[in-house]
Amino acid sequence: MLKRYLLAPGPTPVPAQALLAMAEPIIHHRTPQFSEIFASAAAGSRKLFGTDGPVMMLASTGTGGMEAAITNTMSAGDRVLVVNGGKFGERWAEIAETYGLVVSTIDVEWGTAVDPAAVAASLDEHPDTRAVLVQASETSTTVLHPVPQLAALTRDRECLLIVDGITSVGVADMPMDATGIDVLVTGSQKAMMLPPGLALISLSAKAWRFSDQAKLPRYYFDLRKERKSLEDDTSAYTPAVSLIVGLNAVYRVIENSGGFPELYARHKRLAEATRAGVVAMGLKLLAPDSPSPATTGVWLPESVDGGKFTKHMRDVMGVTVAGGQGHLKGKIIRLAHIGYADTFDVIIGLSAVEMALAEFGHDVEFGKGPAAAQKILAEQYSRNA
Amino acid sequence: MLKRYLLAPGPTPVPAQALLAMAEPIIHHRTPQFSEIFASAAAGSRKLFGTDGPVMMLASTGTGGMEAAITNTMSAGDRVLVVNGGKFGERWAEIAETYGLVVSTIDVEWGTAVDPAAVAASLDEHPDTRAVLVQASETSTTVLHPVPQLAALTRDRECLLIVDGITSVGVADMPMDATGIDVLVTGSQKAMMLPPGLALISLSAKAWRFSDQAKLPRYYFDLRKERKSLEDDTSAYTPAVSLIVGLNAVYRVIENSGGFPELYARHKRLAEATRAGVVAMGLKLLAPDSPSPATTGVWLPESVDGGKFTKHMRDVMGVTVAGGQGHLKGKIIRLAHIGYADTFDVIIGLSAVEMALAEFGHDVEFGKGPAAAQKILAEQYSRNA
Repeated sequence: MLKRYLLAPGPTPVPAQALLAMAEPIIHHRTPQFSEIFASAAAGSRKLFGTDGPVMMLASTGTGGMEAAITNTMSAGDRVLVVNGGKFGERWAEIAETYGLVVSTIDVEWGTAVDPAAVAASLDEHPDTRAVLVQASETSTTVLHPVPQLAALTRDRECLLIVDGITSVGVADMPMDATGIDVLVTGSQKAMMLPPGLALISLSAKAWRFSDQAKLPRYYFDLRKERKSLEDDTSAYTPAVSLIVGLNAVYRVIENSGGFPELYARHKRLAEATRAGVVAMGLKLLAPDSPSPATTGVWLPESVDGGKFTKHMRDVMGVTVAGGQGHLKGKIIRLAHIGYADTFDVIIGLSAVEMALAEFGHDVEFGKGPAAAQKILAEQYSRNA
Repeated sequence: MLKRYLLAPGPTPVPAQALLAMAEPIIHHRTPQFSEIFASAAAGSRKLFGTDGPVMMLASTGTGGMEAAITNTMSAGDRVLVVNGGKFGERWAEIAETYGLVVSTIDVEWGTAVDPAAVAASLDEHPDTRAVLVQASETSTTVLHPVPQLAALTRDRECLLIVDGITSVGVADMPMDATGIDVLVTGSQKAMMLPPGLALISLSAKAWRFSDQAKLPRYYFDLRKERKSLEDDTSAYTPAVSLIVGLNAVYRVIENSGGFPELYARHKRLAEATRAGVVAMGLKLLAPDSPSPATTGVWLPESVDGGKFTKHMRDVMGVTVAGGQGHLKGKIIRLAHIGYADTFDVIIGLSAVEMALAEFGHDVEFGKGPAAAQKILAEQYSRNA
């Protein structure tokens, strides 16, 4: 009887309100009933993105949204600058290369954030750069990149800032319009607490202008068609009905629990508590200087085989955390605190890591991690008594 | 977005396997399909009770089962001995008095177990006693009464041992036949991890003999009719179809996770860890000498208002624990570890209590409770590496 706890950075746990909404009998998508739900979800998505523009809701995962971001704004031979500091930075480069773009890369040490000065230098060196491609939160290295500073660099150039917000949208307050993001993408299975299968994407006025000139081929992901359909409260192709219903339910959950400000505050609090707990148990953070509020990377002791460690936590203890990717494989774990996560998910994660470390022969004093987290987490419960 | 954690001694959390089974379209109860499920659930219930006799499955809560235990075995004017050491001991007396029985009572200090010698003395003083009525686990005081020792007293007398096993069946290993229990009752919403609404009850051969002579009126709860229906894999009146389906699913969950031995071992382990955690945080146990493995009673510091404390934990922190009943109201909390509970439920409960105590002005060193529990709980995860 292993109870399962999902503490990986996606898919994340789905709240009962969304599960139950999605379990209702499916309705047809070309009906006034669904249009009402679709319009409501679209309105919620605009709030989530912090934009007055339309947010397209695609039956796709986030990677499809990343591809759409490029195919809808670029033409073959266009130069783009990729911030490559992790697996998802690599993905930007792969997509761009697949479509025949000319890719400049800034290689960023995994676990650190990009230096805006390096981006500025590259843009100065290549004034023909049509887009900067970056992750707001690089999930593989648990780093938060300085998107607002990058936006300051692209704003006055003929260059778009294209942001993979897959583990930042709904996690950190980064309103698209006010920040100056030109294309923003996210997926349903992260802070939106839904099963995978839905990508959200929005374009700034500047990006739509690029779209008019973009020559890359796109059909299913043609956002001009989606924008037009949105005006009629529908999508160009069959929408992912149950996920849209679930998204609408999630927006109601968020609205009924303090709205987006509380959503961001919660992620910040859980991330701080997790980091404090990790440090208290004597482990090192992967990204101490610019940590993502979505997930926390932790260096394992050298004596511990990370593959066996995460397998033990998952299969023996019931606690699923993420391991490392690329050259971090086997060396780190990632404790997520994104989406439908709370105080006790942090406590579960930290106490489980302590027990697993002990099991792997590491000298651990039980309770240190939870205690440091409790200190931070207890504050929110202050009574007005 | 308050995530809810249910750490009260019933209803207890329901595992997904049972929720999903109960969510399937309902089937008719007079069909071969349902009979097969019913027969399988009845077989599981016999294993659960440790009896070769039939276990009746009534659409009722445990209290209905308690009433059936009396009405099916007693006649007006019969003398019974009630072990009264908590709210549920009082309930035995109330039911017995309602039906015109003559009630002797052994008053037991709340938080302690009955002394078998006192029961022996009462039986010697009143050789006409027809039944001893006792809780195996007195939920209100978190005490485990010494049922095997009581069975040794009733076995050779014309006296039944009638046991409320509502928070002991499925929690502690106490096989009905081998122990010498004459009537055993439980409810679905405790160790059986189901919603409330199902009572299980079984009678020994001796109790069935009493039943033949029992003159108390009973209609819905006439167990002779239920015993006869069981032979045809059905119940006398409409069975609680979805709960029977759920019960069958729960028996499969138990079977697939080490069976009843592991079920009992888990309850023992969680109870030990909870008690260690409570003591480590400097609090006193309500029942240190004979604690129930189902739930742990904890004296709150005198400065803490228990009513406000449990309300704060439930409404502000999302963690539902039970308070005290009767004269313990406001003075204790009860942390349950019964049914679908695991390591991390214990950690959640203890860390939440620490944070709530701090909130109520009590001097708490965070992490002490979880640490003591982790020490005990970590052992089960030993690899064979």
